[in-house]
Amino acid sequence: MQAGYRLAEIVARLGGEAVGDDAVAVSRAASLNGAGPGAIAFLSQARHRADLASTRASAVILGQDARDATSLPRIVCDEPYLYFARVSALLHPAPAVAPGVHPQAAVDPTATVAASARVDACAVIEAEARIGEGAWIGPGSWIGSGAVIGPGTRLYGGVRVYPGCEIGARGLVHAGAVIGADGFGFAPDRGTWFKIPQVGRVLVGDDVEIGANTTIDRGALDDTVIEDGVKLDNLIQIAHNCRIGAHTAIAACVGIAGSVAVGRHCMIGGAVMINGHLSIADRVVISGGSGVTKSITEPGIHVSGAPAAPEREWRRTTVLLRNLDRMNDRLRRLERATGKGEGHD
Amino acid sequence: MQAGYRLAEIVARLGGEAVGDDAVAVSRAASLNGAGPGAIAFLSQARHRADLASTRASAVILGQDARDATSLPRIVCDEPYLYFARVSALLHPAPAVAPGVHPQAAVDPTATVAASARVDACAVIEAEARIGEGAWIGPGSWIGSGAVIGPGTRLYGGVRVYPGCEIGARGLVHAGAVIGADGFGFAPDRGTWFKIPQVGRVLVGDDVEIGANTTIDRGALDDTVIEDGVKLDNLIQIAHNCRIGAHTAIAACVGIAGSVAVGRHCMIGGAVMINGHLSIADRVVISGGSGVTKSITEPGIHVSGAPAAPEREWRRTTVLLRNLDRMNDRLRRLERATGKGEGHD
Amino acid sequence: MQAGYRLAEIVARLGGEAVGDDAVAVSRAASLNGAGPGAIAFLSQARHRADLASTRASAVILGQDARDATSLPRIVCDEPYLYFARVSALLHPAPAVAPGVHPQAAVDPTATVAASARVDACAVIEAEARIGEGAWIGPGSWIGSGAVIGPGTRLYGGVRVYPGCEIGARGLVHAGAVIGADGFGFAPDRGTWFKIPQVGRVLVGDDVEIGANTTIDRGALDDTVIEDGVKLDNLIQIAHNCRIGAHTAIAACVGIAGSVAVGRHCMIGGAVMINGHLSIADRVVISGGSGVTKSITEPGIHVSGAPAAPEREWRRTTVLLRNLDRMNDRLRRLERATGKGEGHD
Repeated sequence: MQAGYRLAEIVARLGGEAVGDDAVAVSRAASLNGAGPGAIAFLSQARHRADLASTRASAVILGQDARDATSLPRIVCDEPYLYFARVSALLHPAPAVAPGVHPQAAVDPTATVAASARVDACAVIEAEARIGEGAWIGPGSWIGSGAVIGPGTRLYGGVRVYPGCEIGARGLVHAGAVIGADGFGFAPDRGTWFKIPQVGRVLVGDDVEIGANTTIDRGALDDTVIEDGVKLDNLIQIAHNCRIGAHTAIAACVGIAGSVAVGRHCMIGGAVMINGHLSIADRVVISGGSGVTKSITEPGIHVSGAPAAPEREWRRTTVLLRNLDRMNDRLRRLERATGKGEGHD
Repeated sequence: MQAGYRLAEIVARLGGEAVGDDAVAVSRAASLNGAGPGAIAFLSQARHRADLASTRASAVILGQDARDATSLPRIVCDEPYLYFARVSALLHPAPAVAPGVHPQAAVDPTATVAASARVDACAVIEAEARIGEGAWIGPGSWIGSGAVIGPGTRLYGGVRVYPGCEIGARGLVHAGAVIGADGFGFAPDRGTWFKIPQVGRVLVGDDVEIGANTTIDRGALDDTVIEDGVKLDNLIQIAHNCRIGAHTAIAACVGIAGSVAVGRHCMIGGAVMINGHLSIADRVVISGGSGVTKSITEPGIHVSGAPAAPEREWRRTTVLLRNLDRMNDRLRRLERATGKGEGHD
Repeated sequence: MQAGYRLAEIVARLGGEAVGDDAVAVSRAASLNGAGPGAIAFLSQARHRADLASTRASAVILGQDARDATSLPRIVCDEPYLYFARVSALLHPAPAVAPGVHPQAAVDPTATVAASARVDACAVIEAEARIGEGAWIGPGSWIGSGAVIGPGTRLYGGVRVYPGCEIGARGLVHAGAVIGADGFGFAPDRGTWFKIPQVGRVLVGDDVEIGANTTIDRGALDDTVIEDGVKLDNLIQIAHNCRIGAHTAIAACVGIAGSVAVGRHCMIGGAVMINGHLSIADRVVISGGSGVTKSITEPGIHVSGAPAAPEREWRRTTVLLRNLDRMNDRLRRLERATGKGEGHD
């Protein structure tokens, strides 16, 4: 048997109630369908209940409502999805950072790398940059001159942080992300474009996750700001001078044009596009694929569509859209029947 | 004259019929308009027939229907586009892999690199990773610990393969692609987000091509799977736990949310967005720019639009959309003429 | 006081009229709101006039119409935004290029690097590549065999230039951009895909800026061409065989399919998608989020929407779209009132 945690140990740490044999030990997290012996799975949505009967998991996490839905050893709790996340973090902790600078890294002598930090092969750390305690700079990453990487932050392979940009503590930046490239700013000059120097920075708060190949541009004059706890998925573009409010989560392929202020605790679905200079209130939810062309001033509202409108309105529009053909037929019939159509008077 | 192949040699290898002087030699593939002496071009669509008269190609590939459309030396065959592809592969073979590890690469002593494989400068290969026979790891690429690159697979510059992910044989991965970054999984936790460890892998089959800066996330619990023969263009996002069926081709800028199952032999146009947890049947064709919000269960169907609907339906909708203004005018006219409009009773 | 320029010096160089104390010196460009002592700000849009009263800038640039809108030392000119850009370039010049090849770069002995060029750590320059005078190759970039980087061009970290591609003079390429990956070309072959060798190149003109993680594919047979003065934002995909006309500006997240010819002096908004084989005339403006499915032949036209149509038409369509529900109600009312609806005759 692999090392792991007995259910009794887990509830002692995380709360909840063990039901059935609480001496059962689990060593990894799994889905109901993918689980085998030694794994713990979870049920958070009623539609997966059928999978409970067939799972090979050694134990299951479920809500009060599903307390008796299985005879497996189980933990009953209030929020099974969050509880499962905590158990998974317990069973699969982030690897410890083995400190040291790889001999094939290139660290400028004026840069500061904390003794407990790690710098992988082919990473390049330029003049005056500062790497915090326990930070981990992945292979082939580039930390520009004067940039700051906070304590405990991990950059995977090939992350690019331009000069002067700052990332806070406990962050996670995935491969290929680019922090601090020039914003897209040009003044028209008799048929050509005159580049506007982009002299702002990118300031990223604490506990931020940034996805693979996502790009966040530096400010033109002031800074682009990503507040604490923001979660960004892959292939997102955040243009210069945006501010993304704390704990907002943004799914993949989203594009946010310049000088947009997104509120705190928002949820933005995949492939949403937000026009420049707009404001989005706190706790706004934007459905995937929406195109936001006006500011959203009502906190907590749910919007959808292109142009984005309150969710319910958009749902009816899409139904009507697919019935446009029938509306047209009804109109033509009325015109014929009443003799009052175009060209009839 | 450059070395090359005489038409007689080509038809001996690939079939088809040489018409005219089959001793003519060709050394490179070209378009009808771009061709010069020594080049072979092709005609596969009637609309390019006018270019036949002016081409400077030494020989042409065409279908039976166009057999007599030129007096140039030519190869007549059933599928001129496929035939041309084969001739081009003959004239422009992939460069042979010169084996060896560049002295400025960083290969962990516990990694396995086949003797016939090549590792370029500034590539980083971590512990326990395995590089197959004839594989080619491009400059600045990162192969995470325990990852596997199959025989004959080529990674261009700056490809990132996270720990534990596997790519099969004869693959081609373009610059900046990221395989195996964390999926976007967080449980809400009293206003903040609790990260769900992403413990699955990415498994890529044989003969897969992955475009530049495309991202494929590792599974949350189970694996993300790209089956054999899949072709992915640039800047595509494939989220955690997706399965892309064999020989499906996906154009650039597509976003596929989590846990989507795409069938085999599908064709997905550029910038298509597919919502999470959907299934797409085999041989489905999705037009560029479509937004798929429901599963597509009918194999071989062609869908378009946002939300995506069968192609013919969507075409009529878009025509009607551009006539909405006129429909509105017709409705107003009827209301006035009948005296039965809003506010009239 | 920081070194800088007195207003009198600035107008001597750039024209315009100094009003108030022209001995005031400024050392950095700032926004009205972000400015402090020593900064020069600008006003180009009437809606920001209120910020003039509260700015802490030492001097301001404004148009003739706003000549008396402040008592601060100021420069009055015809195009304040362009003038400000020039002042900013004066105050924040691009850093001088310190020549030399970093000992941890990997430069093939057959490559040519100009004496005044700079090659950073972990950059890889392959056989026969040529790096021009004053060019700067950033850390971890890859210049493939035979590729050419023009004089004065700067590549930031991790730029990938495939073999044979060429970039002109005074260019700026941001981190993670990929120039010259294979176009997405496959011939169907009995249920699988046969790769068509992509033997064209990418040719980039002079004074081109390319954004972070943008991808430009090499031509299939002929070349992909980016003409002089083109400005490309982040995360753009330009497929094989496209031609982008001189001085065209393209915002982030745009996807342009294969063989598209975009004219000169066009402006393409964010997230626009352009179908393959289309032509766009000169000076066309395409609103963000539009889907272009037909060629645009009228120079200077402004189009919007999906499918894209002339801007005014699309604005009315979107208004009507949000009123579809009401149109449907009006239609139903008419049907009832006249007794001529479906199923009534």
